[in-house]
Amino acid sequence: MSERIAAQLAFLVEVDKLKSTLRATTLCDGSRRENSGEHSWHIALYAMVMAEHSNRPINVNRVIQMLLIHDIVEIDAGDNPIHGDHDPAEQDAVEQAAADRIFGLLPSDQSANFRALWDEFEAAETDDAIFAKSIDRVQPVISNLETDGGTWPEYKVTPAQLQTRVGTKVQRGAPAIWEALKARIDGWFAQNT
Amino acid sequence: MSERIAAQLAFLVEVDKLKSTLRATTLCDGSRRENSGEHSWHIALYAMVMAEHSNRPINVNRVIQMLLIHDIVEIDAGDNPIHGDHDPAEQDAVEQAAADRIFGLLPSDQSANFRALWDEFEAAETDDAIFAKSIDRVQPVISNLETDGGTWPEYKVTPAQLQTRVGTKVQRGAPAIWEALKARIDGWFAQNT
Repeated sequence: MSERIAAQLAFLVEVDKLKSTLRATTLCDGSRRENSGEHSWHIALYAMVMAEHSNRPINVNRVIQMLLIHDIVEIDAGDNPIHGDHDPAEQDAVEQAAADRIFGLLPSDQSANFRALWDEFEAAETDDAIFAKSIDRVQPVISNLETDGGTWPEYKVTPAQLQTRVGTKVQRGAPAIWEALKARIDGWFAQNT
Repeated sequence: MSERIAAQLAFLVEVDKLKSTLRATTLCDGSRRENSGEHSWHIALYAMVMAEHSNRPINVNRVIQMLLIHDIVEIDAGDNPIHGDHDPAEQDAVEQAAADRIFGLLPSDQSANFRALWDEFEAAETDDAIFAKSIDRVQPVISNLETDGGTWPEYKVTPAQLQTRVGTKVQRGAPAIWEALKARIDGWFAQNT
């Protein structure tokens, strides 16, 4: 087997493990916790469907590619729930090491390209990354709304915390979507807290 | 909420069900069967990594979009294992109805675009669709090789059947990948049958 194809397959086999990384949120039917592999599929589809609501010019295909790889570091670093406690600096160090290891399995040209795309997502400064980050925050909100608040009660999330941790990030890249969700969110908190 | 965003979210919530559609193949560690949502993520990433091995000019971003939606009809139609028994005509009718229903949840312009992309994948005539179909057949082979034959013993697959059902399809769009896998596949069958 060519060394190049062998390296590509080694990467593709390694990332299979993302299907075993569990997130805080559940499926929309509440039957089980979602894993980061299926989340990555869903969120890429979110971007494909919702691209028109970006408040800045984006290349939807770059956003999709970014979202396909955005959580791969969780194979080593695990998922950190938005409303959970973790040390950002420590988390960042673990994720950087994970990116070195996992993207490093690819042939060097692809490794550099994938790493640059992931770095861009993490930095959240380009238009594409800002929209990708916004849409990544929308999906758990939908899951929670579909499952009667989902993880909000468990994490004792207040409307103000939701606005800070989620709302401001969705508003940065896709304010129309946050606007559309606001009434449903406010309705849930009014009835349940 | 705007009707448009409401329709888009209804589609995105509905497709969450693809995470509960089980495939024949397991994860690469053999721990459980794979679902079609996480498969769709993995296969889009396969395309992103393996695009250079297409034997015809392709637009990798169209291929990725195609693969993100290629299995959505399985929410209604279920997954049909490559090596299982099913009536192709009956299956086709169920999948067409599923496509009508599920893509029909989207706003009409997006519904038409998504449906056209899915129809193109199913027809397997364009360069993009041929490569998408090829890469879709590679991933279960890797999973089976990683799990000591995986589903091959259960379905009593012979090397000739594997060549017909999988090999010819991979060779149509990505012959270099099949070539690279051939020795591993032949080795497994030589040792286990």
